[in-house]
Amino acid sequence: MNTILSSSEATANLASASDTQKITRTPLPASKKAYVPSPNDPSIRVPMREISLTDGTAVTLYDTSGPYTDETVEIDVNKGIADVRSQWVLERNDTEQYQGREVQPQDNGHFDQDRGFQYYNDDLQRTPRRAIAGKNVSQMHYARKGIITKEMEYIAVRENQAREALSNEFTTDERNSRLKGNPLGANLQPITPEFVRKEVAEGRAIIPANINHTELEPMIIGRNFLVKINGNIGNSALRSSIEEEVEKLVWSIRWGGDTIMDLSTGKNIHSTRDYIVRNSPVPVGTVPIYQALEKVKGVAEDLTWEIFRDTLIEQAEQGVDYFTIHAGVRLHHIPMTVDRVTGIVSRGGSIMAKWCIAHHQESFLYTHFEEICHIMKAYDVSFSLGDGLRPGSLADANDEAQFAELITLGELTKIAWKHDVQTMIEGPGHVPMHMIKENMDMQLEHCHEAPFYTLGPLTTDIAPGYDHITSGIGAAIIGWYGCAMLCYVTPKEHLGLPNKDDVKQGIMAYKIAAHAADIAKGHPGARYRDDLLSKARFEFRWVDQFNLGLDPDTAREYHDETLPKDAAKVAHFCSMCGPKFCSMKISQEVRDYSADLKSAEIEAGMAKKSAEFAAAGAQIYVAQSE
Amino acid sequence: MNTILSSSEATANLASASDTQKITRTPLPASKKAYVPSPNDPSIRVPMREISLTDGTAVTLYDTSGPYTDETVEIDVNKGIADVRSQWVLERNDTEQYQGREVQPQDNGHFDQDRGFQYYNDDLQRTPRRAIAGKNVSQMHYARKGIITKEMEYIAVRENQAREALSNEFTTDERNSRLKGNPLGANLQPITPEFVRKEVAEGRAIIPANINHTELEPMIIGRNFLVKINGNIGNSALRSSIEEEVEKLVWSIRWGGDTIMDLSTGKNIHSTRDYIVRNSPVPVGTVPIYQALEKVKGVAEDLTWEIFRDTLIEQAEQGVDYFTIHAGVRLHHIPMTVDRVTGIVSRGGSIMAKWCIAHHQESFLYTHFEEICHIMKAYDVSFSLGDGLRPGSLADANDEAQFAELITLGELTKIAWKHDVQTMIEGPGHVPMHMIKENMDMQLEHCHEAPFYTLGPLTTDIAPGYDHITSGIGAAIIGWYGCAMLCYVTPKEHLGLPNKDDVKQGIMAYKIAAHAADIAKGHPGARYRDDLLSKARFEFRWVDQFNLGLDPDTAREYHDETLPKDAAKVAHFCSMCGPKFCSMKISQEVRDYSADLKSAEIEAGMAKKSAEFAAAGAQIYVAQSE
Repeated sequence: MNTILSSSEATANLASASDTQKITRTPLPASKKAYVPSPNDPSIRVPMREISLTDGTAVTLYDTSGPYTDETVEIDVNKGIADVRSQWVLERNDTEQYQGREVQPQDNGHFDQDRGFQYYNDDLQRTPRRAIAGKNVSQMHYARKGIITKEMEYIAVRENQAREALSNEFTTDERNSRLKGNPLGANLQPITPEFVRKEVAEGRAIIPANINHTELEPMIIGRNFLVKINGNIGNSALRSSIEEEVEKLVWSIRWGGDTIMDLSTGKNIHSTRDYIVRNSPVPVGTVPIYQALEKVKGVAEDLTWEIFRDTLIEQAEQGVDYFTIHAGVRLHHIPMTVDRVTGIVSRGGSIMAKWCIAHHQESFLYTHFEEICHIMKAYDVSFSLGDGLRPGSLADANDEAQFAELITLGELTKIAWKHDVQTMIEGPGHVPMHMIKENMDMQLEHCHEAPFYTLGPLTTDIAPGYDHITSGIGAAIIGWYGCAMLCYVTPKEHLGLPNKDDVKQGIMAYKIAAHAADIAKGHPGARYRDDLLSKARFEFRWVDQFNLGLDPDTAREYHDETLPKDAAKVAHFCSMCGPKFCSMKISQEVRDYSADLKSAEIEAGMAKKSAEFAAAGAQIYVAQSE
Repeated sequence: MNTILSSSEATANLASASDTQKITRTPLPASKKAYVPSPNDPSIRVPMREISLTDGTAVTLYDTSGPYTDETVEIDVNKGIADVRSQWVLERNDTEQYQGREVQPQDNGHFDQDRGFQYYNDDLQRTPRRAIAGKNVSQMHYARKGIITKEMEYIAVRENQAREALSNEFTTDERNSRLKGNPLGANLQPITPEFVRKEVAEGRAIIPANINHTELEPMIIGRNFLVKINGNIGNSALRSSIEEEVEKLVWSIRWGGDTIMDLSTGKNIHSTRDYIVRNSPVPVGTVPIYQALEKVKGVAEDLTWEIFRDTLIEQAEQGVDYFTIHAGVRLHHIPMTVDRVTGIVSRGGSIMAKWCIAHHQESFLYTHFEEICHIMKAYDVSFSLGDGLRPGSLADANDEAQFAELITLGELTKIAWKHDVQTMIEGPGHVPMHMIKENMDMQLEHCHEAPFYTLGPLTTDIAPGYDHITSGIGAAIIGWYGCAMLCYVTPKEHLGLPNKDDVKQGIMAYKIAAHAADIAKGHPGARYRDDLLSKARFEFRWVDQFNLGLDPDTAREYHDETLPKDAAKVAHFCSMCGPKFCSMKISQEVRDYSADLKSAEIEAGMAKKSAEFAAAGAQIYVAQSE
C-alpha cells in the first residue's frame, strides 16, 4: 500500500502541455495589471486591475484574478504559478523544512497497487515547512504579539483598492449624508496595517494563509472588510477532470472569486489538489473528511481519528489554507434532527452523524479538537467550523439542531483561539428572509464575532435551476447584516455538478450580493464603481459601461444583439427607445436648461425663458445617421 | 387622415394562421387546469393549476397562464380568447355600448394615407362599453357602496389557492411558531370576498379590470394579498413583431406573470394592443404618453391635452386595465434633478419634463388630472401613478426630486379616490439595500397605503447583463416590506430589448422575489409549496422536485446533463455525491435510528444499542446498480 510509482510511470498520466492552453489567459477588456507598492515596504507589490476609460482616465479595482490576467507572466499549470511569499515565511525564522508524509496510493483513492496515480506530477511537489517545535506560525499568533506581518501590509493596500488616489467627482455633502450606509455594527474605515493586525488579533478577521501555499496573494475575511465570496469547485465520483478543475479555478477568480474550495470526491483527490493549490493565487479550502472517507472506501463508521489526522497533515503539507471541520455535530444533537423535513443535508454533517450513531460516541473531531488545533497552528491552516446540521429547507431553518450546533461552534472557537488558530464559522443554507437576522445575531453573540461564512442562504425552495438567485437574495441580506464571506451557489445546486458557465453564473450572482452588501454597509468607496458606471451610462459611453461592469463580455454581447453595428456603440441612444427619442438624452437637455433656471424664475413664469426653451427644443433629437 | 382602410385591404397584413401555431400551448409537466368554483356562486369558476405528484397526491397552485395551458380550449390569436366577465358587467346594468372613437392611421404611427394599417384585424374589434352618464363603474366605487362584485368573489377563491383543501402534513406547533413570518404591518389572513371588498374600498388594493377587457381573469394587487409581478413586453422602433409580442405575453403568464405592460413604441401600437388585450387573461397596462408622442411624431413639446385625452379614450375602449400616468412631474421638481448623476431616466418623466420646460407650464397631466379621473371611472381603468423622477442610479436614490414627486403622487391619490378611481403608485428604480425601507415607509405614509408597484429596485449598478439579479434582491426585500407588485427587470435592462428567453429569466427572478417576500411576510400557505418540494427532494422523488419547481423544464434539463439516464430519475442519489455516499440517504437512516434513541439512552451510552447500530450500518449504502 505504501508503494509510490516512479515518476516516469506516473508522468504517463500527466496533464498534457495542451492543458495549459485551455487556461483562460486574456486580461479583461481594456484592463491591465497594476502592481501597487505598499507605502511601508515597496517590495510588497499588490496586484490590482486598472481599467482604461474612453475619456482618458483609468480606475483601479480590487483584483482576485492572479497572474492569469497578466499577459507578461508565463504560466505552465504543470509547474505552478510564481512564488509570492516564501521569503516572508523564511524571514520569520520560525519554520523548518522537513521530509513530508509519503504520498500513498489511497490518497488518490487507489487501493490496487497496479493502478497507480493518474496525474502525479513531480514538478508540483514541494518540500513542506512546518513550525519549529514550540512555535506557532498563525497570523493570529503574530497579531496577538503585536507583529504586523507582510501579509497584513499587503492586505491593507489591497483592501483600500488604491481609492485614495481617486478624486471623487460624485461627492456632495447632500449625497454623502444621504447614502452613507447602515453598517449595523460593523466598524468601517480606511484600512491600515495596524487595523488589519488588530482585527486578526481579536478574532474578527482571518487571513487564510498556509505557510506552504507560497503562491498566495494574501486576503482577509472579516466583517469590517470588503465582503468576500467563495466558489466551490472539485471533481466528483461521476465526472470532470483535473484540467477542467484548474480552469474552473482560473475562471472563478477571473470573475471575482476571493477563495475557492476544492470539494473533490472519488479518485485522484490528492493530485487534483496538487494542481489546484500550486496554481491558485487565492486561498484554497477543503473538507478533509471527504478525502478521509475515500480512504475507508466510503464506509463512514470505518473512519478513525488516525486516518483523519493523517489526512489533515497530508493536506496541510500541500498548502491548503482552510479546513472545514464539522466538529460541532455532537451526539446529543442528532435526535434534534428527527422531525426535520430534510434531516441532515450537510455531507460532512451526515458522515459524522453516521459515525457517532454507529459508535455511539462523540465524534473524533470533537474529542480530538485540541490536537487538531496543534496541527492547524503548525502550518497556519484556518478553521472553517462546519455547520453539519444546517437546515436543508426553509422548514428546518433556525431550529433547535441548527442553533445547538452553533453554540457548540462558539465553544470550539474559544478553544481554537486559545491556540491562536484563526477561525471562521460556517452558516446556512436555507433561511427565509425574515429569519436571516436571527442567524447573524446568534452567530455574532455565540461565536464572539468570529467571521461568519454562509452558503446563501436560499430564501425559497421552489426554484431548482435558479438557486443562484434564491440564495443571492439571502447572501446580499446577510452580507449587509455582517456576514464576512458568502459561499456561492450555482444554478445547478440540488440538480448536478456545475460546468464552467454555471461557475460564472454563481460567481456573478455572489459578486452582486457582496457588492450590494458593501454598499448597504457603507464600506468606504464601495459605491465609487457604481457611480462611474452610472455616469458612463448617462453619457452614452457604451464601452465604458461594458468595461466597468462585472461582466464586460456579456454586457457587450447583449447590447450587440439589438444594435450590432459599431456605430451603435457610440450612439447617443439605445435599443430600448431607439434613435428618435431617448430619456437619457432629454434628461441631459433638462440639465442644461435647469442650470439657468432659478426657482424664482419658475414661480414668476418668465415668458422670455419659455420662448427660448421652446425655440431650442426642436433641436434636441439626434437621429441615428447624425 | 381619418380614412380607415377597408378590411379587405387591411387583412392582407393580418397575422397569419400560422402565428397561432407559434403560441405555446402545452400544459406544464404533470399539470392540468382545474376550475375551482366559488362556494358563493358556482358559476364563478377560477382556473388553477393542479400538479400530479408521483405519490398519487395532487397539489393546486395559483395559475396566471390562462386558457393557453388548457388543452381542451381552442385558441386563435386572430380572434382572441374566450369571454370571462362580460355577463358580470352587463348584469350591473350601469354601462352602455356605443360607437367608439374611429381608429385613425396615426394611432398606428402612419401619417401617409397610402400606407394603411399593418395587422388591422376586424375579428379583434369590439364595440366598446362605458358607464352610463353619471355612473361610475370602478371596482372601488362598488366596494365603497358595500357591493361585492363577481370579480371580488373570483379573487377570494383565487387568492386562497384552494389551500383549505390541503391537510398540512408539515405543520407542528414548534415549526409554526418558529416560521410564522414578519408581516411588518401587513394584515394577512385567509381571503374572503368581504375582505377583498374592504381592501378595495379603503384603497389598499386594486382590481385592474377595464369593463372592455372581458377576457380578463380578475386578480388583485395589494399588500395584504400575494405579492404580484409584472412583465413588460412591447415592440419598439427598432425591432420585434406583433406575433412575437403575443407569444411574449403567453410566455410571461406561463411562467407566472400576474400582469403585463405593453410598452410598444413606433409603428402599429394600436394594432399590437388589439392583439395583446384580446388575447390576455391578465390585466394589461400601458403608458399612454408613449403612443401620444408617436402621434406628434416624437416631438414632446407638440403634445397637447387633447391628443393625450384622445389616446386615453382610444386605449380605454380597447380594454387597457391600467395606465401609467406621470402626473407627479411638476415644474418646480425639475431643477431638483440637475445635480443628479443620471438626471431623469423615466421615459415618461423626461417627456413631461421636456414639455414643462418648453411651455414653462405645469404639465397637462397635472392640470387636467380630474378630467383624467372622469375617463378612468367611465371604463374602470386604474391609475398607476408613474414615478417620472425615479432615480436612475444608486447615487440619485431617495433624493429630493424623488420624494417631492412621491408626495405629489400622494396628493393625486386623494383626488383619484375622491372619484373612486383605483390607484397604485410606481416606485424606483435604483436603491441600495439600506435605503429601501425608507422608500416603502415614505410611500405608505404619503400615499395613504395605496399599493406600491416598484421596478426592482436595483441594489447595485455594476452588473449590466445581470440586472434581473441586482434588482431581484431589491424586489424581494421591498416585497417583504409591503410592496404589492414588482415590475420585472430582464438581463437585457440598460442594454437592449428582451427576447423570449430574457422574458423568462426576468419572470423567474421576480417569481422568486415575490414568493420569498410572501414567505417572509408569513402569507398563509405560501410556504406549503416549499415544504412539498423539499420533502420530494429529501425522498429522491426527482420528478416531483422538477414539477413542483418554478421551471420544471430547466430543472430536468440540468439534472439530465450529469445524470442523463432514466434510471437516475428514480435513483436514491444525485450527481453531487454520486451513488456511493449521499447525505440525504444517510440522513434518512439517522432518522430511523434516532426514532429509537432516547436522550437518556444517549447519556447512558448503551452498549447494546451501539452494537445494533454498528451491525445495521454496513447496509445503508445503495449502489447505483441496485
